[in-house]
Amino acid sequence: MIPNHQEFYRGRRVLVTGGLGFIGSNLARALATLDADVLLVDSLIPDYGGNLFNLAGFESRLRVNVADVRQQSTMDYLVRDREVIFNLAGQVSHIDSMRDPATDLDINCRAQLTLLEACRRHNPETKVVYAGTRQVYGKPATLPVDETHLVRPTDINGINKAAGEYYHLVYDNVFGVRACSLRLTNVYGPRQLIRHNRQGFIGWFIRLAVEGKEIQIYGDGSQLRDFVFVDDVVDAFLRAGATDAVNGDVFNVGGMEPISHRDLVELLIGTAGSGSVRYVEWPAEKKAIDIGSFYSDSTKFHNAAGWRPEVNLRDGLRRTIEYYREHLSKYLEIGS
Amino acid sequence: MIPNHQEFYRGRRVLVTGGLGFIGSNLARALATLDADVLLVDSLIPDYGGNLFNLAGFESRLRVNVADVRQQSTMDYLVRDREVIFNLAGQVSHIDSMRDPATDLDINCRAQLTLLEACRRHNPETKVVYAGTRQVYGKPATLPVDETHLVRPTDINGINKAAGEYYHLVYDNVFGVRACSLRLTNVYGPRQLIRHNRQGFIGWFIRLAVEGKEIQIYGDGSQLRDFVFVDDVVDAFLRAGATDAVNGDVFNVGGMEPISHRDLVELLIGTAGSGSVRYVEWPAEKKAIDIGSFYSDSTKFHNAAGWRPEVNLRDGLRRTIEYYREHLSKYLEIGS
Repeated sequence: MIPNHQEFYRGRRVLVTGGLGFIGSNLARALATLDADVLLVDSLIPDYGGNLFNLAGFESRLRVNVADVRQQSTMDYLVRDREVIFNLAGQVSHIDSMRDPATDLDINCRAQLTLLEACRRHNPETKVVYAGTRQVYGKPATLPVDETHLVRPTDINGINKAAGEYYHLVYDNVFGVRACSLRLTNVYGPRQLIRHNRQGFIGWFIRLAVEGKEIQIYGDGSQLRDFVFVDDVVDAFLRAGATDAVNGDVFNVGGMEPISHRDLVELLIGTAGSGSVRYVEWPAEKKAIDIGSFYSDSTKFHNAAGWRPEVNLRDGLRRTIEYYREHLSKYLEIGS
Repeated sequence: MIPNHQEFYRGRRVLVTGGLGFIGSNLARALATLDADVLLVDSLIPDYGGNLFNLAGFESRLRVNVADVRQQSTMDYLVRDREVIFNLAGQVSHIDSMRDPATDLDINCRAQLTLLEACRRHNPETKVVYAGTRQVYGKPATLPVDETHLVRPTDINGINKAAGEYYHLVYDNVFGVRACSLRLTNVYGPRQLIRHNRQGFIGWFIRLAVEGKEIQIYGDGSQLRDFVFVDDVVDAFLRAGATDAVNGDVFNVGGMEPISHRDLVELLIGTAGSGSVRYVEWPAEKKAIDIGSFYSDSTKFHNAAGWRPEVNLRDGLRRTIEYYREHLSKYLEIGS
């Protein structure tokens, strides 16, 4: 049975790594609302997505510790009394990973080992939920993609995220540190980094629509993707953290219906009432790591944790657009 | 068509990383015999398997450069004029990887990126053949295991070797550095490290038989494995280096018939005429990462490169035992 995950978190001591980032901050706000005892750790590395404004209105209910998850002694201390750890710290830009693979390795692999070693040595009773990615599948052999699909990443970031995920499974299996991974599809919503376009296209497109600018689609825009609203992803993390049925395993967390880039942009521009679209040639560096159509099957996670996406794309885009209309300047400043 | 890989290597400028190790040194000797221009790089890290005696008789035909493959500037220089790179440098102990995951990460991930970046920047025309491992599959879901089996490593070493392999495929696909990976099963033969038992059991069992000592089998010894003689593995590398049909892909390199641990040890003791066997309980740290029976299907590599194993286990063990009988002391010294 799925425990009542809202009851579960009352007074629960929780750590969120990457807690000032897009998903981490939304999760932290939800945890605070559930009266959890929430500690956030974030390195605030410029350009990565950590943004103190993401906690606006919740500053008094969330503790923030600025630190780098690669720091073993720091993490040894921070994990000590935490009952659930949501592990979302990471370098998420595919493009950056191809330009500087060593840094991506450091953050997406070494830092994961650092956290897991801290748990193993100082808090083996904790539970870790890792933010994995659908990128580990690479170019799909079949659609929709479920968890039996081969792992075959097409870029360095996908490889290192796969390794980070596997570490969690090994620490669960060998050292008894309960852990699982959620392989997230394209996530969108308030509090996403939109200052540059190196962390995926959806946030960038939303910014361009809000600013009334031109959105460029590579190729004919026929490739399909599934999108999941950040509140649904937060719910997925809360469920995964609260049930032991997911331990030692990986789960897709995908969207409702797949949609083409073309239709997505049309819906986005229509919802925003601003922005325009232009079709352009693929840039070589992006084409080389493009995977064509992708959408995932989340049945396994539904069966294990009762999760399904609840927010449709139209509503999610509307809420996201409203958020950025109100707070756009907070997401354009250096460091945001 | 499969090129004549013996002709292919005459005068060919070749680099072997981990060239003083078990497979690397056997490969280097074969390349010298084929009149290739061979440069070996090896860090000679104690306990890892590099042993200068492995080149005995070939010292004048092989150039050795002692260096660490993690050193970017060194690798930038060494790869410059090499037409084929056999990339065998690695940390190969599962047990060590669980005790010290950060070092395993450094050698099996960072060093691979270092080599590939060197190629991308300074010799993009080269061809890289990576020594992968059947460990990336973890505990088999079906037997025999072919390349469509999920990658799901059960230890840190397997995870990092998987990442190292994926890097090669991405550099092939994205940056045009031709590369492939051979997923080696249990390899045995002359020049293997046998000074300690942390690099797999087959070399250790052979040493014990040669020394007339007791061999311990964990559990009932019913689990199956396939074994491949090092000369067959050398042939696999030579073929992979000489054909472009393997670029950007992964291939199992497995043995002939699977055999149980029990029957293996019986054959080993019978062939050696020395040694004894005792069945003991599984040690916890080994049981946690044991995968049960495993044997691989090498049909894909046969189809791509014409390879199949030629040396049966009886002959291979006999040749290995003879080698260590003659040279045992060279493999028991500190540093060997």
